[in-house]
Amino acid sequence: MSTSAYDPNNIFARILRGELPAEKVYETDRVLAFMDIMPRADGHVLVIPKAPARNLLDITPEDLADLAKGAQVVAKAVKAGMAADGLTIQQFNESSGGQVVFHIHVHILPRWEGVALRPPGTMATPDVLAEHAARIRAGFKAA
Amino acid sequence: MSTSAYDPNNIFARILRGELPAEKVYETDRVLAFMDIMPRADGHVLVIPKAPARNLLDITPEDLADLAKGAQVVAKAVKAGMAADGLTIQQFNESSGGQVVFHIHVHILPRWEGVALRPPGTMATPDVLAEHAARIRAGFKAA
Repeated sequence: MSTSAYDPNNIFARILRGELPAEKVYETDRVLAFMDIMPRADGHVLVIPKAPARNLLDITPEDLADLAKGAQVVAKAVKAGMAADGLTIQQFNESSGGQVVFHIHVHILPRWEGVALRPPGTMATPDVLAEHAARIRAGFKAA
Repeated sequence: MSTSAYDPNNIFARILRGELPAEKVYETDRVLAFMDIMPRADGHVLVIPKAPARNLLDITPEDLADLAKGAQVVAKAVKAGMAADGLTIQQFNESSGGQVVFHIHVHILPRWEGVALRPPGTMATPDVLAEHAARIRAGFKAA
């Protein structure tokens, strides 16, 4: 294993501890889902386990199974709430794999026919994130 | 749910039935992993469940958990066998989400610092796929 140790001060760990805010859309005792602040599509959500893990290389199989099941529940709600045609799921491991925050997370990207993903790196306003989060919360009832 | 029904004649179903060849690297009673014939990186592997499912929207949570656990085992072997720095994981749902074959599959893409993914759509030769598959099979012992 060439991965480094888990850093308990990564920003998602701080969100889990309530030290940083997040626009949350779903929470259980095992997983948390919240809006990506640099959405590559409207309604771009991240799903993370509450258990600490750097990425796919060190998460326990049991925590991974819970993360996958949670991501599926959220994905259906995102698709319903955002009236998406499809979904692109991404999960990045280590810097070369695209990882920026070193607490494992699953990207859920709603997709529509003919609409490309936006380039990475543009921050959304809190109002926009709140509006999309409200649609996704409603999507849990419709999914 | 807006997804269509599962098509039992999709090419991955045919691979599972032995009607089409594939360069396999891992198989259990629950999942199969084989080389993507249009690799976006050397060592690009697909992991599929043996149970029929179109995508993330209709797979059962139990089959999804098994798929995720299998993908993790394969991902570690791909990283070790291909001497990768990291991994990018992708999973596409419906055409707008990037899906082309309608049997759920997880893309495992080995990544190296400074090496971009190749554009989609270029077929690799059987010799190249066989060479990378051999490295990945060896990676299961090293992972």
